[in-house]
Amino acid sequence: MSGNAKYSILFEPVKIGPVTAPNRFYQVPHCCGMGHVRPQAHAAMRAMKAEGGWGVVSTEECEIHPSSDLSPYAEQRLWDEHDIPALRLMTDAVHAKGALAAVELVHNGNHAANMLTRAPILAPSDMSVDFAYPKQARAMDKSDIREFRRWHRAAARRAKQAGFDVIYVYAGHHMSLPHHFLLPQFNDRSDEYGGSLENRARLIRELLEETHEEVGDTCAVAFRFAVDEMQGIDGMQAHEEGRAVVEMFAEIPDLWDVNVSDWSNDSATTRFQPNDGYQIPYIDFVKQVTTKPVVAVGRLTSPDMMLSLVKRGVVDFIGAARPSIADPFLPQKIKDGCIDEIRECIGCNICVSSDNLGVPIRCTQNPTMGEEWRRGWHPEKIAPKGSQEQALVIGAGPAGLECAMQLAKRGYQVTLAEARKEAGGRVLAESHLHGLGAWKRVADHRIYDLQQRANVQMFMQSNLTAKDVLELDIPNVFVATGASWRRDGIGRSSHKPLKIADSMQILTPDDIIAGKMPENGPVVIYDDDQIYIGGVLAEHLAAAGHKVIFMTPASMVSPWTELTLEQKRIQKSLIELGVTIHTNQELAAITSAGCKLACTYSGQAQDIQCGTVLLVTERIRHSALYDTLKAGKTAFNTLELIGDAAAPGLIADAVYAGHMAARNFEEDPQKVAQQLFKREVVSLQ
Amino acid sequence: MSGNAKYSILFEPVKIGPVTAPNRFYQVPHCCGMGHVRPQAHAAMRAMKAEGGWGVVSTEECEIHPSSDLSPYAEQRLWDEHDIPALRLMTDAVHAKGALAAVELVHNGNHAANMLTRAPILAPSDMSVDFAYPKQARAMDKSDIREFRRWHRAAARRAKQAGFDVIYVYAGHHMSLPHHFLLPQFNDRSDEYGGSLENRARLIRELLEETHEEVGDTCAVAFRFAVDEMQGIDGMQAHEEGRAVVEMFAEIPDLWDVNVSDWSNDSATTRFQPNDGYQIPYIDFVKQVTTKPVVAVGRLTSPDMMLSLVKRGVVDFIGAARPSIADPFLPQKIKDGCIDEIRECIGCNICVSSDNLGVPIRCTQNPTMGEEWRRGWHPEKIAPKGSQEQALVIGAGPAGLECAMQLAKRGYQVTLAEARKEAGGRVLAESHLHGLGAWKRVADHRIYDLQQRANVQMFMQSNLTAKDVLELDIPNVFVATGASWRRDGIGRSSHKPLKIADSMQILTPDDIIAGKMPENGPVVIYDDDQIYIGGVLAEHLAAAGHKVIFMTPASMVSPWTELTLEQKRIQKSLIELGVTIHTNQELAAITSAGCKLACTYSGQAQDIQCGTVLLVTERIRHSALYDTLKAGKTAFNTLELIGDAAAPGLIADAVYAGHMAARNFEEDPQKVAQQLFKREVVSLQ
Repeated sequence: MSGNAKYSILFEPVKIGPVTAPNRFYQVPHCCGMGHVRPQAHAAMRAMKAEGGWGVVSTEECEIHPSSDLSPYAEQRLWDEHDIPALRLMTDAVHAKGALAAVELVHNGNHAANMLTRAPILAPSDMSVDFAYPKQARAMDKSDIREFRRWHRAAARRAKQAGFDVIYVYAGHHMSLPHHFLLPQFNDRSDEYGGSLENRARLIRELLEETHEEVGDTCAVAFRFAVDEMQGIDGMQAHEEGRAVVEMFAEIPDLWDVNVSDWSNDSATTRFQPNDGYQIPYIDFVKQVTTKPVVAVGRLTSPDMMLSLVKRGVVDFIGAARPSIADPFLPQKIKDGCIDEIRECIGCNICVSSDNLGVPIRCTQNPTMGEEWRRGWHPEKIAPKGSQEQALVIGAGPAGLECAMQLAKRGYQVTLAEARKEAGGRVLAESHLHGLGAWKRVADHRIYDLQQRANVQMFMQSNLTAKDVLELDIPNVFVATGASWRRDGIGRSSHKPLKIADSMQILTPDDIIAGKMPENGPVVIYDDDQIYIGGVLAEHLAAAGHKVIFMTPASMVSPWTELTLEQKRIQKSLIELGVTIHTNQELAAITSAGCKLACTYSGQAQDIQCGTVLLVTERIRHSALYDTLKAGKTAFNTLELIGDAAAPGLIADAVYAGHMAARNFEEDPQKVAQQLFKREVVSLQ
Repeated sequence: MSGNAKYSILFEPVKIGPVTAPNRFYQVPHCCGMGHVRPQAHAAMRAMKAEGGWGVVSTEECEIHPSSDLSPYAEQRLWDEHDIPALRLMTDAVHAKGALAAVELVHNGNHAANMLTRAPILAPSDMSVDFAYPKQARAMDKSDIREFRRWHRAAARRAKQAGFDVIYVYAGHHMSLPHHFLLPQFNDRSDEYGGSLENRARLIRELLEETHEEVGDTCAVAFRFAVDEMQGIDGMQAHEEGRAVVEMFAEIPDLWDVNVSDWSNDSATTRFQPNDGYQIPYIDFVKQVTTKPVVAVGRLTSPDMMLSLVKRGVVDFIGAARPSIADPFLPQKIKDGCIDEIRECIGCNICVSSDNLGVPIRCTQNPTMGEEWRRGWHPEKIAPKGSQEQALVIGAGPAGLECAMQLAKRGYQVTLAEARKEAGGRVLAESHLHGLGAWKRVADHRIYDLQQRANVQMFMQSNLTAKDVLELDIPNVFVATGASWRRDGIGRSSHKPLKIADSMQILTPDDIIAGKMPENGPVVIYDDDQIYIGGVLAEHLAAAGHKVIFMTPASMVSPWTELTLEQKRIQKSLIELGVTIHTNQELAAITSAGCKLACTYSGQAQDIQCGTVLLVTERIRHSALYDTLKAGKTAFNTLELIGDAAAPGLIADAVYAGHMAARNFEEDPQKVAQQLFKREVVSLQ
């Protein structure tokens, strides 16, 4: 049985109210840092999903009115008719590839601070906005509710005008007014919109009915609903009110898009939720209650799991946000029987972090994500080689692997040399740490691909010297030799080396990764990197039974991970593992007995006794080989330093750098240079 | 001697290289959250400064290349010719009002993370980007430096094309590459760009000379330079290397724009730096070293101080960022002898907070700031009254005072009633707290204005009932009755009332403001507001000798004040005052003995003994009078709830609400409604 036939059920058309999806692959609404700020980039990105076989492609949140103004974040807008042309770009592009286009209409209530419009903030009851911003929302009165319904109806009409096939009512992620009305933690009204479940759900009913009335003739009305808040009895639970809501509105929407709340639960990372399909136990009752099609999510990346979910009648559509980002061509690859070629989502939430920064979406696995318009990159297509024949890639970490793979796809004879026993570099190394196992997929995908190709030679345990490189006589050399963690204390907080007593054992993340463990306890982890690895190592060592003291100049553990929705989980986990945490502390010196600290606010000194210090600070680029080659007499046709060796960053940055080097090789330099300048600008009309 | 004549020296034209400023009022570069994201709003805002009499009006930072990409922040851009038209809007508008236009060219080095362009990050030496983002900059090699100089020169050319008269080289705020090269904490190079001061300053010399060469025929070249890092011997000091730099380049720039670094020192708030003119002691040597004109800043709001600074030969230009925001017509008012009408900057940094959020600039004193284009507001002009004659404003807090003042300006007979003895509301109240004295200017300015007007009647100690209001028989009523702090524990972290033992003394910020003090110590301040007042009260009570324990669910004291550049100073101050700080703690209950806490991460319980609890949580709107009037039989022509009574927020929000209510009164409702929708959209071409 070919892949094609086995999975054919996934490629059946499915009716959603008045429209029909061409198959069961459904890209649910997900944010992307593009929105109304970057409409051309947005249309190109969504169209790529459609081209890759997603039968329904949705927008991110789409603000319906200036009182739901998410500035400075880059979401969509349908405030009035001026926003229609930008969204028309998307629907036209998605339709051209044969998919349906869906839009998630939203009023964010107290989740929007209206920082641009300064409109009053609305909520079921008087309350603060939901982050540390000095504004309180006012309880909506009856006329506010009427107005809101009018805005929603008008936005649905504009969505239809913009060419959308599926129009959402949205009660999820704790992010929308209908959700706020539904949940007692937001709603303490005593009128017909508060109190009983029926009252709290009244607004949803009205929106569903009015959206049907307004656009239901030609558009499907989808309801996105979080069945469980994952707060136990303190919140809505799937088997109690969650189910009751589905029963109440069973046949009203044309489609049920069900998930869990809040966002950090819906988009859990593999570090804290390693199971694919983790939302299924919460939503598997839905199809028993409604005859309408159901879509669900939760890292559904395995085609066999998809098949089983459809066959068992759990869902009608395979929903995806992150897997569709990691591989826009996931459906097509299943259809073509090329399952091994799927780039599986690693669940790292780099995609989420981009949106939280208000910049275009990035993905660790898919370096073309977010670059469809700006650089014209296609995840599956790359120009064939030019006049050169051979390329040498030195280093098989994430940059080297991606570079080698793309060069091989272009048709070059590729030689890939790696100093260590196994390919994978830092991705392989970090994947051995507590919680990061899924990250190995970044290496696995590329190694598998390279192994299939006749034009690739891979050499492990080949620690090339400059002389070796010259002897290979390959005119095009990409040096991806990575970086290692500093051992001298230089980092974000201090550009000067630290005083370190010789007798103290000093470790770096590289040592731990290489299997070296603290000889004497307790171990102080000094995290001046403040990204993720310090927290991971603390978990790793504590889980291995070491007594760990975590110190950082930041005010929390791993502050950057607020962007990946992990920070709360990380600090909780360290506390539960018994790790002692000292925040707001700079390391002033390491003595033979321990660490001398200085408070980042007051400079107040403090001594902490310990047996080992693990320094998580900055990285040193491994550019020696490149520097030697560059300074040598032999002129290469191409000699390029890429990845962490050029600029230490995330794994996603290394993959991107490797991809870009392969793309730009033998490209017109003028054209390449121009891509750096491509951007969307504001109209002066 | 009329104001006009006394200050005439301030209105002399001053030559700056090849151009001539019409007077000595110089709006130095300042950010505004508009930039390339909102070019029309930007042009209108800058033009208003020119109209108000500022002889030179500058942009914010203007990125010269995609490798200095400050996305998602809204600064200016001159990456290539596509950015010229947006800036041309500004220069044309500024020129039309008779002022010179200046542009601050910048390459931000490791202060820019290039999140949109993903270009390599550049710095003198290998180092992290300067905030918790996972990227390291690489040390620039010689070819990088050549390229950078080429970019800077090309950007200067484009700036000239865009119509700028003054073009900056910028080495300040720790925010630009030339500054990074200059400072040893960033630069440990061993080539001719590192080591000696001459070497570290080489890049600045090259940029100054090359900018002259490129555009010096018709444009002045300004040098913005931070003479002191305010780090004592750990940084550059005005009397050492700071002076040496001025001596080295004395006659090279056409203008010296001197200040102190970093941004939090240059834009110190009155809370921590109450002195106007606080930068003068750092920069007063400059004019002794150069014959070129000098501009300086540091909250120069007093015309007599301005006069003295010019007469004493300290400066040639009165520089201003914040005072020009609080009052764009400051120069004109001095010229017209209307010094009492100046809206003095209160040094609260709400302006800075807007830019840090990436949204348009707001100002506590000047509610029209940032609304010149969107709402068409002019700080000094307002439409005359329509057919109505009388208005009653209830409450003389910031919203009521502003509303009454603008209504009076429009020509209505205004009755202003205040329940308390004095006008000022929360502004007056908060100005009695530690460090907030300057905030009183918000009330003073408005009370003074109202007192001058024959069409205003002010009644203090008039706590109007609904019956009183009806008896007054005024058909237009604006209710600005404010809000008070909750006493039940409901706040950001919990929407449910707290269990509170009757025997414990519970205070709110209103109690402290009213002069009530803790009876028993220690006093726990529970700050679930997380904006500024909790930290102010802790300082206030500790300074008054109370033993204070500060508790907050946030990870730091007053996290919102990171946006006003005050957070580090606040937490330092509390530590130095001996305040005990418990972060990441939610208040679970108040017993007769103290507080029961729960860790926000783990839920771990903790008991803290105390004698008094000061709850800083949410506010309750005082809408009872409004609600009664609205529900009553009498139909008013206008009945409007404004300010904190409608939606608790900042003082700036209350002033804005009062202003808007006065503007919109008797306006075409359609036109008013439309203003909420006005925004700049991205070009689809």
